Amino acid sequence: MKAEILTIGDEVLRGEIVDSNKALLAQRLLSLDIECHYQSSIRDDRRDMDEAFSRAVERSDVLLVSGGLGPTRDDITTEVISETFGRPLFLDEASLEAIRAFFRNVDREMSETNRKQAFFPEGAEVLVNPVGTAPGFALEQSGCLIFCMPGVPRELSLMMDEQVLPRLEDLAGGTRVRARILRTFGIGESSLESELSDLARKGGAEIAFRTTFPDNLLRIIARGRSTSEVDMQIDQLVEVVRERLGDLVYAEEDESMASTVVRLFGERSAQIAVAESCTGGLIAQSLTSIPGASGCFLGGVVSYANRAKETLLGVPESMLAEFGAVSEPVARTMAEQVRQQFGADVGVATTGISGPDGGTEEKPVGLVHLAMSWGPGPGSASAGLHSDHFVFPLDRQRHRVLTTQVALDWMRRWALGLELVGPTLLRKRGGSSAPMHRGAPAANP
Amino acid sequence: MKAEILTIGDEVLRGEIVDSNKALLAQRLLSLDIECHYQSSIRDDRRDMDEAFSRAVERSDVLLVSGGLGPTRDDITTEVISETFGRPLFLDEASLEAIRAFFRNVDREMSETNRKQAFFPEGAEVLVNPVGTAPGFALEQSGCLIFCMPGVPRELSLMMDEQVLPRLEDLAGGTRVRARILRTFGIGESSLESELSDLARKGGAEIAFRTTFPDNLLRIIARGRSTSEVDMQIDQLVEVVRERLGDLVYAEEDESMASTVVRLFGERSAQIAVAESCTGGLIAQSLTSIPGASGCFLGGVVSYANRAKETLLGVPESMLAEFGAVSEPVARTMAEQVRQQFGADVGVATTGISGPDGGTEEKPVGLVHLAMSWGPGPGSASAGLHSDHFVFPLDRQRHRVLTTQVALDWMRRWALGLELVGPTLLRKRGGSSAPMHRGAPAANP
Repeated sequence: MKAEILTIGDEVLRGEIVDSNKALLAQRLLSLDIECHYQSSIRDDRRDMDEAFSRAVERSDVLLVSGGLGPTRDDITTEVISETFGRPLFLDEASLEAIRAFFRNVDREMSETNRKQAFFPEGAEVLVNPVGTAPGFALEQSGCLIFCMPGVPRELSLMMDEQVLPRLEDLAGGTRVRARILRTFGIGESSLESELSDLARKGGAEIAFRTTFPDNLLRIIARGRSTSEVDMQIDQLVEVVRERLGDLVYAEEDESMASTVVRLFGERSAQIAVAESCTGGLIAQSLTSIPGASGCFLGGVVSYANRAKETLLGVPESMLAEFGAVSEPVARTMAEQVRQQFGADVGVATTGISGPDGGTEEKPVGLVHLAMSWGPGPGSASAGLHSDHFVFPLDRQRHRVLTTQVALDWMRRWALGLELVGPTLLRKRGGSSAPMHRGAPAANP
Repeated sequence: MKAEILTIGDEVLRGEIVDSNKALLAQRLLSLDIECHYQSSIRDDRRDMDEAFSRAVERSDVLLVSGGLGPTRDDITTEVISETFGRPLFLDEASLEAIRAFFRNVDREMSETNRKQAFFPEGAEVLVNPVGTAPGFALEQSGCLIFCMPGVPRELSLMMDEQVLPRLEDLAGGTRVRARILRTFGIGESSLESELSDLARKGGAEIAFRTTFPDNLLRIIARGRSTSEVDMQIDQLVEVVRERLGDLVYAEEDESMASTVVRLFGERSAQIAVAESCTGGLIAQSLTSIPGASGCFLGGVVSYANRAKETLLGVPESMLAEFGAVSEPVARTMAEQVRQQFGADVGVATTGISGPDGGTEEKPVGLVHLAMSWGPGPGSASAGLHSDHFVFPLDRQRHRVLTTQVALDWMRRWALGLELVGPTLLRKRGGSSAPMHRGAPAANP
């Protein structure tokens, strides 16, 4: 089955927005194993749209259109479809009522211009929009199934998932396709692939790999005659993969590492504090971006300057002088102190050289020390202190992101009673693998 | 002049990456006032590429292609162009030598597969790539000027700016086009437009508006017969706009607010500390993401929990009990305390309710108190304390981003000796304007 995506709107063509709708729709198609052959964007222009629609129905089996369904004069998708394919518009009373209801709900008057959103080309099946005023529609034309959806990402994503995907499944000859994402951190893509090479296809399910720095994702996909059959195939493969990879799999689907940490610590009523030097607030920011973070995150100290390490975190001046700010003793003191000062169960500290400047022969750009301190409490019977150091040969931003992810992963590992390990390999796409771990983990006291 | 953008690569079609190259190229075209009529993406597929190239030269005057110039078997852009337009490939010795030199520089052996990157279709003009192995090329075909560039964003952007844009300027009949961006914060887009309506076109220059939350950008664009003429036109209009808008313009081109703050404080040898509650580390993170931030940023306290406000920032328990954590006295104490504890010249504090939960009748979701404390020093003759509060009716993430921007803008204003004001209006795209400022600024003591 050949699919095609078409997004409509002047703002895309002017480069004013990076159009993420196309990637969203392509991912969804892929979840049904339907390959997308073309993606195009055109302006709100009658002739360009007419041409694009005509070409698409000739060369594709499925056409997903987003945009141009709004109430303004620029929004002409429905009109052009009607003209291009000679299908007069009809008024759908149910849609008109739904639009009226939408405005009643938000306590606003429906404008006359919204009326046009209740008109559809002859033969179209209406796709309701529970979160906006623009209904979509499906239409078969010359053997091509056209789905017109709104351009607002939230409305588009809901309509695609709830109304278009089920119809596409039916179209795929009754074949059911399901996919599930497993998120891994700490293992390079090539190691992951060789680790799972014998499972790449197993039963009716298969595994695809994708890197989203600093994570590597696995997409487990299965096809079959019934939903229960494919779900079972996926469950089985997921179980085998999880057994093989163990704690390298940190979450499924869209759950981020920070979100995982907030969930795990919340469940355990355990509390976190962080002392950040090189990450400069990024760990705190990642945790607090998750709604409900206040349930487990007490706060942190960003001790960017040395004096802040002394006065706020009680790192002795002599220690800074002897070992330097980027050192194991300093990281350990920071973790210990921040935990005590916030009265947290767990304290995590980072100190490193993210670059681009500040490296020396002995302490190169990319070096980072991490430490974690914990008291006896919800997650652990006894107190402990763990530290480790790495050299991440990355630019400033990616160095901070990777260090943050290691810190968050240590929190997850602590909550689950797992060993506190760091990433051992990072394989850059198309590049060579580089050992990133330097030095053995310090023993827990 | 009709331009068209074509990006090539399976990863785009699968939705594995959000393709930002298209937006980048469209923006650059716009900077020359060339409108982009089509954007498409296709797979690394011989037939699809042949079709796309043929159609593009028929309907467009300029075709920008990105991707498919690498050394692997998938990279077939050059080959397909050669076949589609009947132009045999020739070896460009200078390019081969440049590729060899590239590998010598990074101390690696050139692979035989890289040889193919030195071949070009007959009639092509080579576009050198100083930062990668893939040269690009320009070619005129049936009246359409084709530019093929690499897909790696850094290489693409450099080649576009340094080699393609000058050629497009020449193509535009010797007309020179230049644009400059002015970045504003704190004024709604509609207010901005009406403020500048009489200047929208002045002399040979004009103004276009664009919103990139939380900023509003002005693009000043001019056309003329010579570079010096258009530069003068832009300078003149920029001067008038800057005079009209005053301190609402915080930077030009790509300089962010955080970067502006780091620069201004660095120039003044003034130092910053932050106490963050609702922003949860985002202010610290924004500042430390700028290389060289350690020159002015001492650090901060993320006092997410109430107890952290007491123990680390000395906010009296009685004050928290009487006024609540989200209150003016607490914000003021936090700012004052963090400045003193870090020994900074300026302390900034945030405390608010970013949502989605936690609001009350009296203190709704969206409420935020900010405070800034400063001592006598580089930026100010006398010490001071300023606070203000706002209700930003935004989701959690945008609430945090806007609050952070206000905090950073106060730092900029302090460094420049300007009044500490907040955003008065925020106009949502297509929505209605809402007053965002609640309460008068507290007097400086």
